Amino acid sequence: MTGETSPLDARRAALPSSYRLFYENPVVVDHTEGVWIHDAAGTPLLDVYNNVPVVGHSNAHVAERVSAQLRTANTHTRYVYPAVAEYASRLESLFPAALNKIIFTCSGSEAVDLALQVARFVTGKEGMIATSHAYHGTTAATHAVSPSLSRHFVDDRIALVDVPEEALANGDAGEEFARRVREAIATLEARGVGFAGLIMDQVLTSDGVFTDPVGFMAPVREAVRAAGGVFIADEVQSGFGRTGTHMWGFDRHGIVPDLVILGKPMGNGLPIAALVGTEELLNTYGETFRYFNTFGGNPVCIAAADAVLDEIERLDVLANVVATGTLLREGLSATLAAHGLEATVRGTGLIAGGDLTAARETPAESKALVADIVNGLRDRGVLISSTGPRGTVLKVRPPLIFQSEHVVRLMSALDDTLTHLST
Amino acid sequence: MTGETSPLDARRAALPSSYRLFYENPVVVDHTEGVWIHDAAGTPLLDVYNNVPVVGHSNAHVAERVSAQLRTANTHTRYVYPAVAEYASRLESLFPAALNKIIFTCSGSEAVDLALQVARFVTGKEGMIATSHAYHGTTAATHAVSPSLSRHFVDDRIALVDVPEEALANGDAGEEFARRVREAIATLEARGVGFAGLIMDQVLTSDGVFTDPVGFMAPVREAVRAAGGVFIADEVQSGFGRTGTHMWGFDRHGIVPDLVILGKPMGNGLPIAALVGTEELLNTYGETFRYFNTFGGNPVCIAAADAVLDEIERLDVLANVVATGTLLREGLSATLAAHGLEATVRGTGLIAGGDLTAARETPAESKALVADIVNGLRDRGVLISSTGPRGTVLKVRPPLIFQSEHVVRLMSALDDTLTHLST
Repeated sequence: MTGETSPLDARRAALPSSYRLFYENPVVVDHTEGVWIHDAAGTPLLDVYNNVPVVGHSNAHVAERVSAQLRTANTHTRYVYPAVAEYASRLESLFPAALNKIIFTCSGSEAVDLALQVARFVTGKEGMIATSHAYHGTTAATHAVSPSLSRHFVDDRIALVDVPEEALANGDAGEEFARRVREAIATLEARGVGFAGLIMDQVLTSDGVFTDPVGFMAPVREAVRAAGGVFIADEVQSGFGRTGTHMWGFDRHGIVPDLVILGKPMGNGLPIAALVGTEELLNTYGETFRYFNTFGGNPVCIAAADAVLDEIERLDVLANVVATGTLLREGLSATLAAHGLEATVRGTGLIAGGDLTAARETPAESKALVADIVNGLRDRGVLISSTGPRGTVLKVRPPLIFQSEHVVRLMSALDDTLTHLST
Repeated sequence: MTGETSPLDARRAALPSSYRLFYENPVVVDHTEGVWIHDAAGTPLLDVYNNVPVVGHSNAHVAERVSAQLRTANTHTRYVYPAVAEYASRLESLFPAALNKIIFTCSGSEAVDLALQVARFVTGKEGMIATSHAYHGTTAATHAVSPSLSRHFVDDRIALVDVPEEALANGDAGEEFARRVREAIATLEARGVGFAGLIMDQVLTSDGVFTDPVGFMAPVREAVRAAGGVFIADEVQSGFGRTGTHMWGFDRHGIVPDLVILGKPMGNGLPIAALVGTEELLNTYGETFRYFNTFGGNPVCIAAADAVLDEIERLDVLANVVATGTLLREGLSATLAAHGLEATVRGTGLIAGGDLTAARETPAESKALVADIVNGLRDRGVLISSTGPRGTVLKVRPPLIFQSEHVVRLMSALDDTLTHLST
């Protein structure tokens, strides 16, 4: 590319159309720090969206640990590198005792793909259940449990369950959710594929962010157990303290899954993810299949992941998430209400969904409103996104070091955006 | 883990049985440098196996570039970060003009999984061809084209083709290979799944290392084209100069694939891989499916990959591969012959296969001999492995900065190992 080509043109020339950009006015990044993304024009943009840099963009401790490791060793798991098992042990200590084995991968997609293989191999069944607007990954097998991306890959081996939105709003959702899961199990059995298991984001992000009432996952978990299936908790969104009260989303609901997916925040941006599970399941799979992931659990990514745990402790991240999260949801509710919008703010900790479905007459109008808010905020230097089956939910999910001053900045920009939209 | 637990015990406690170790006497790594892995006892082990640290373990330039990037920015591809397209463009300039689009992933498995999705979506067919001892990845879909790992995932959508070992030895293999591929295409069509494409390691590593005669891939490529299938060149083994004469294995055979898989050596150990392809194929897929890989093409891994290209140029790696590779194969042949072993040394550049199938009466005995050599070398401070459908081929595949002095060290250890084995 010559100096005359714009960054967007250079990107279009080199990358295919599968690459999509956020915002009508895309962000060109220059550098990042903490909760700030500085663009090429020198404007600081407040990051209220990214859940990968969980202990802050360009975190110094993570950078130091990774830099030192790069100069020391970066081998693979067919040799012993003691720091890998040391980190695995440290991480396992944060889980219920039954979840005492871990397999490292590069991405959440790889971890989910492997979890599906384990569930299917161990049960001898093929059928999996996911929510009807779930997202769990980009491999062919994980696409099939990601109807939010496309239904192209959803085949007869998959049964989808609608999140019981009304029951959740009324606070008696667990039994209704479990009833729908039992129905889906019956569907899979009727199709002859049998029931291997269920996978569920523990904060139901792409379904629209559903976190309460606490405990509603428990009847679902029991329905899966009763039918002999494997319960896979996807903690890519909810893990590593996102909820504030707990390290893991499943813990907040008081359940113990069979398998757990860890992803995005695990290495603060270094590609590392994992499948955590019971010895019984993972060793049963492992005795028949070796699993070697070239980069999975390499010492450099492990150093990043270990540094993330250091920072979560040092910065008392979970306490910050609880305190800032409360301000965030209160601020969102108050600001949306101040502009006369019929809104429901869901979520816990630093995952919030501002549901504007009822703010307009039709879902299409509500979706347009949400898109206008997202783009309006971006033009005011604040980055959020949208989610939910109809695209009518504001997705607010900042790095976990987000502070009250940042909530104030977000609300000020939201207030200005809404004022501008209503004129 | 307490200080009293051995590194092996700590590993067994934290990781499941899917994790396997190399060698009867596993390697415990302390630190690495260039072509050397220093173990916990302070012994330097010569690395004649690893193809990930292509420009050397703990490469200083890669470490510097990654460290600087970690302190600058590490975002994702839904924002524009100009260095990503700049690297994509630099990489594409090393390919034939038709291969002008790239999608970044974290691992070769993810890139292969995506390539299979593209081939199947674009052709509207399901059937894929792979070699009968291929290895292409660990996701469910890529397991299915990896019979060397297990045949558990090989389903009706896959047809396997035996590498024509005899014809290759006689130097007239292209047409015979193409004939077998056409037969497999007919099999897939007879099964009703149709023919979507073929995937092939361009140096056939896990099938036993077959690189010659140059050009034998061309009739295979033509057979795929004639049947309307997608030819996927897996360059995880052969790419980034492994053959010495060419940057890519397919280039050496004088063919242009439709899709190309890049993996292991791409970032010298940072998790980065890619799918390179024609605009037509990748945009056709991209117009229907967005593809977002959270860590794929992140600026930190891109910095590593860019630094690898810097080092390949600066160190004149390809010329070194040609020169050292010739010494390596000559040395292997001479040393094995000096011990009266009936051996065939195949390969090119710095991928060599020492085939000892004929050195013993039965494949099981040859396999045992190869295992004894691999373990004997390890005990003498030299790391290699085995490959091939019967495990009867020495797999010799060092980092590309391997020098003549290292060949001498390897031959000395091999000589000593063989002397010891025959007594």
